[in-house]
Amino acid sequence: MKIFDIAPVKYLDGKMLILDQTRLPGEEIYIEMETKEDVWDAIYKLQVRGAPAIGVAAAYGLYVAVRDLPEDNLFAFGKALHEAADYLVGARPTAVNLAWALKRMTDKYDGLELTDLLAGADISNPNPVKAAKDILFAEAEAIRIEDEEACRAMGEHGLTLLEPGMGILTHCNAGTIATAKYGTCLAPIYLGHEKGYDFKVFADETRPLLQGARLTSWELHKSGIDVTLICDNMASIVMRNGWIQAVVTGCDRMAANGDGANKIGTSGVAILAKEYGIPFYMYVPTSTIDLDTPTGAEIKIEERDGEEIYKMWYEKPMAPEGVKTYNPAFDVTPAEYITAVVTEKGIVRPPYKENLAKLFEGDK
Amino acid sequence: MKIFDIAPVKYLDGKMLILDQTRLPGEEIYIEMETKEDVWDAIYKLQVRGAPAIGVAAAYGLYVAVRDLPEDNLFAFGKALHEAADYLVGARPTAVNLAWALKRMTDKYDGLELTDLLAGADISNPNPVKAAKDILFAEAEAIRIEDEEACRAMGEHGLTLLEPGMGILTHCNAGTIATAKYGTCLAPIYLGHEKGYDFKVFADETRPLLQGARLTSWELHKSGIDVTLICDNMASIVMRNGWIQAVVTGCDRMAANGDGANKIGTSGVAILAKEYGIPFYMYVPTSTIDLDTPTGAEIKIEERDGEEIYKMWYEKPMAPEGVKTYNPAFDVTPAEYITAVVTEKGIVRPPYKENLAKLFEGDK
Repeated sequence: MKIFDIAPVKYLDGKMLILDQTRLPGEEIYIEMETKEDVWDAIYKLQVRGAPAIGVAAAYGLYVAVRDLPEDNLFAFGKALHEAADYLVGARPTAVNLAWALKRMTDKYDGLELTDLLAGADISNPNPVKAAKDILFAEAEAIRIEDEEACRAMGEHGLTLLEPGMGILTHCNAGTIATAKYGTCLAPIYLGHEKGYDFKVFADETRPLLQGARLTSWELHKSGIDVTLICDNMASIVMRNGWIQAVVTGCDRMAANGDGANKIGTSGVAILAKEYGIPFYMYVPTSTIDLDTPTGAEIKIEERDGEEIYKMWYEKPMAPEGVKTYNPAFDVTPAEYITAVVTEKGIVRPPYKENLAKLFEGDK
Repeated sequence: MKIFDIAPVKYLDGKMLILDQTRLPGEEIYIEMETKEDVWDAIYKLQVRGAPAIGVAAAYGLYVAVRDLPEDNLFAFGKALHEAADYLVGARPTAVNLAWALKRMTDKYDGLELTDLLAGADISNPNPVKAAKDILFAEAEAIRIEDEEACRAMGEHGLTLLEPGMGILTHCNAGTIATAKYGTCLAPIYLGHEKGYDFKVFADETRPLLQGARLTSWELHKSGIDVTLICDNMASIVMRNGWIQAVVTGCDRMAANGDGANKIGTSGVAILAKEYGIPFYMYVPTSTIDLDTPTGAEIKIEERDGEEIYKMWYEKPMAPEGVKTYNPAFDVTPAEYITAVVTEKGIVRPPYKENLAKLFEGDK
């Protein structure tokens, strides 16, 4: 399957590679990360984006930062590891997955016992630094694989909600290049495609940053999936034409009552879906559910520079100089418009307050 | 008031001027129409657009085409007039107002009596060609003034639906530069502004052709009206924020049952308005109501080239080469979502089938 070729971060033949998403869809270039500065730049410049993908990049990136260090001094190695982690976390200070993945890597190192560092070593010539490097690499691999498995699980649960031949509308990019692999809301589309489900996908272009046009239509098209690009304001007519049987989106943060913040425009798509009697499914890894936030009203919405709307992509400005703008990056879709929440642990239906909490009952 | 300076077609000091709308919002340039070829080009290249504005441009343009002809042969003059009209109608063959305005001008000429051509002339030196030119100029003026009065009437009726301080959302451009003056759905905003109503207008950018960003935000901003530009997919959040008390749009064609075709995205805005309990007003000159079309289902929707979505305005293509697109220019807003239809003859409320028909009862 072609889709197995598309992942935002790869470690192959001793090289860490990042798909430069800023050059999509025109150019598909994997750039090699040779130093921690390369990794910092790639995260800072959004060459890699999407919360899970940033986590994976950070984990491998920390390994890259230390893999070529001398192997004669474990103390110096540990110090350099922590310094590199402190450095990398500054690339996008608000990206939760960045800090999370770096902490998981340094915690792994800090928790090592002497026996871990000698396990498997040639007893006549033990090398704890080399052993630590191998363990850190394995941890980065684990972070990647766990995310891939979580996405695959979301895809398998989500696929039970879909039927072969369905028309599916999606908004923004919660696809394979935003995660380790498969994506969140695009995972069932990839898995269904493997089974010959023959979906007809419609991708909202997703203004102002055009993730739907640049990223979603690119990855689906490249994977051989039938995808049609539309402007955001065409969602109503494609639903009215009878072409859509399900809407799938990702989620940036879900409150305890099931209100979900996601890319700007998601709430409008959800309202249209309700009006046309089409189910609306939000794909929400459990790490994105915040039971400490009671409702969507408590989720702060980031406002961004208005130039993104009228200047960023254009040869010349598309609005008069000095015009006022409003450019929220997200909106909150109230729980009442969400038919089901798909997590890696299974599908959650209303009432969300009770049923989302149940997902965490085993956790302590 | 500043707004009186903004009209798409002017005839001042013996010169016909057209505001080159293709250069908005970056440059505000009035170009002089000196020949019928200039007028043809301006219409063909969309330097003037909007059905009523095209009609006004055609009427003055036909006058320009003949105003410098010799005044010694009425027969040759009439022949040249008809030839010029036949030529100009080819600039945009599907634009109903273009053909309508040209026919009105030639009908006026064809219906002239000798007494018309001699009225007011110096009896010792009568000049029927000169008289015909003056009559044609007066007819062009009449076409412009009638449209201006119709827009003003729509504005006055529409203003009764609004209150000072309201937040108003609009989609696309049904403004002063699409008509002789005032616009259709922007007319009440201009008239209210004159009275100090202090509206807060939100303009959808209106993808893919960006009429909201390029034209609506330009003309409102220039007129000193408080306007905020948003992406189409932000309509839901501004409504949810409580910032919108009315939605106003134009209409390209209304069926007998009140279904209204307008710029793509209008139906989605209307559905959101209903969901948020906000009135949705469609501004529909009676010339746009087609009682011979029973419902919106019979209105054919023009599909346009997909490159408008991902190539037209951008420095580089914003979707992968060869991606499928769907690019309808219009959608139909079902009558059930339209709170009231504003015409130059007054406001029409549901049931539309009965009440729209009443508008035409006096006509034969």
